[in-house]
Amino acid sequence: MKIAIAGAGAMGSRFGYQLKKAGQDVTLIDPWTDHVEAIREHGLQVDYDGQLDSVEIPILYPQEVTESYDLVVCFTKALGLDAMLANIKPALGEHTRVLCLLNGLGHEKTVEKYVPAENFLIGNTIWTAGLDGPGKAHLYGSGSLALQNVVPGHEEQAKEVAELLDQAGLNATFDPNVRYSIYRKAALNGCVNGVCALLDCNLGSFGSTDSAPVIIREVVSEFAAVAAQEGIILDQPEVVSYVESIFSPDSIGEHFPSLHQDLVQKGRLTEIDFINGAIARQAVEYGFRAPYCELITLLVHSKEQILGAK
Amino acid sequence: MKIAIAGAGAMGSRFGYQLKKAGQDVTLIDPWTDHVEAIREHGLQVDYDGQLDSVEIPILYPQEVTESYDLVVCFTKALGLDAMLANIKPALGEHTRVLCLLNGLGHEKTVEKYVPAENFLIGNTIWTAGLDGPGKAHLYGSGSLALQNVVPGHEEQAKEVAELLDQAGLNATFDPNVRYSIYRKAALNGCVNGVCALLDCNLGSFGSTDSAPVIIREVVSEFAAVAAQEGIILDQPEVVSYVESIFSPDSIGEHFPSLHQDLVQKGRLTEIDFINGAIARQAVEYGFRAPYCELITLLVHSKEQILGAK
Repeated sequence: MKIAIAGAGAMGSRFGYQLKKAGQDVTLIDPWTDHVEAIREHGLQVDYDGQLDSVEIPILYPQEVTESYDLVVCFTKALGLDAMLANIKPALGEHTRVLCLLNGLGHEKTVEKYVPAENFLIGNTIWTAGLDGPGKAHLYGSGSLALQNVVPGHEEQAKEVAELLDQAGLNATFDPNVRYSIYRKAALNGCVNGVCALLDCNLGSFGSTDSAPVIIREVVSEFAAVAAQEGIILDQPEVVSYVESIFSPDSIGEHFPSLHQDLVQKGRLTEIDFINGAIARQAVEYGFRAPYCELITLLVHSKEQILGAK
Repeated sequence: MKIAIAGAGAMGSRFGYQLKKAGQDVTLIDPWTDHVEAIREHGLQVDYDGQLDSVEIPILYPQEVTESYDLVVCFTKALGLDAMLANIKPALGEHTRVLCLLNGLGHEKTVEKYVPAENFLIGNTIWTAGLDGPGKAHLYGSGSLALQNVVPGHEEQAKEVAELLDQAGLNATFDPNVRYSIYRKAALNGCVNGVCALLDCNLGSFGSTDSAPVIIREVVSEFAAVAAQEGIILDQPEVVSYVESIFSPDSIGEHFPSLHQDLVQKGRLTEIDFINGAIARQAVEYGFRAPYCELITLLVHSKEQILGAK
């Protein structure tokens, strides 16, 4: 199977590396010049739990893509997905399956502009990875991956892709409830990501305030209301407990969520439109409001502008 | 008429000074030791538009109050009003009129615990003043004051108080629509005060963001919904224009609102419960929600706790 990884950052590099080592025909696609040139010159260098390795993997700029693939795995930043798909149209043939593994919500609308729904797979992964520099991926810890088809009746194609990824050591499974997991994880991010950026604090600091339980309950209920419109019934008390479980210093309480890192630490535009913003937009489409998500999104966008984020 | 000024900070000192100079029998009441002792030793020292002056005015600690007054003018911080009234109960006789000039909303419930509604006057002032240190008030610019009775049928008493204050040069008038002005001013503060503290920015910076018009429209509509329950029909487009007019550098765009000063600059607890918090509480009492005001209040309280505000 001819596979392309659209977005070869930390996670895309992990998937590309593991698939290549498993003998697959895999090509990376990325727009970052230094990264592309480093991989062309030295191969993809990998620190895998302390073991150094490198593999030759072809890597293309999006504009260089000329032929179609059997499978395209999307691992761009949320803000880069649309441009990536627009630039790699030749990769997307009539039978190309596209697996979207981005965090957050609302990517389906982007993918559906370029890919027929029956070829579209969605997934949720808890693998992690980092980049130590252009061409240098840092892979650590264990993880897993669940995926499913978007259109009912295409389970077999989804299972085939899951098996292929599983054979590359990615602990991949077919799971007919992936959308539930996606909503649950997005709700977690919706409770803490924007708020910690606005309050300029780590997870534990926010979690220790008297306002946190109220904000979490309201945000989770807004995610649940939108999910319910899509036939997904979130177990709200369980999701609230899940959110509250991360505040302990024994968990990731001392961690600053990614949106804080992007906005406050690096002055970058955030993915808020794919977390709380997606809920706010969907709610309006379904005929109601998600005001906590609306205001968190509006305030994060204000902060982006005030800080001159790019 | 025997007058007490409950809360002799900047504004209380201005009123005390002007009333004393107009020949009234006026007593200051304040709990701040350095301020009380300075005024007892040196009188109240005033820089009035560059002119230095000082007057002897009696000043009491709240606990020292033993006799009743004809008029008590409340000028405490919002968070200090309840304790002040509880401590000066002897000042509040059967016929004592109490004029509340605090910014924000929700003070009526506090005053009504100590004062019969028919003796209660509410007002709204645009006078300004500062304290240069204990016992030293700084009075500048011009201003005015509007007041009205809370219970219909007590207009004459309100007019009498307005006339007395007007004779002291305070440009005081009786105005049957003071509640409208109070809501309009509170809505302004509700749009910018908490938000600028959360975004750590001045008025103009917030006003220049794309989110500002949306946030302002929603917050004004929540203030209007609560005001409507009290028979006050806010002209929402006018209030929105009023809020937007302050963002220009020619207006007060470069100014950091008081809540930013309190929380971010001085690490103090804020008056948010008497601005957005009051609307959130009242909305629930009236059977609906004011979610933007709720979340602004919750986030400001989180920030207070994270900063260890006192």
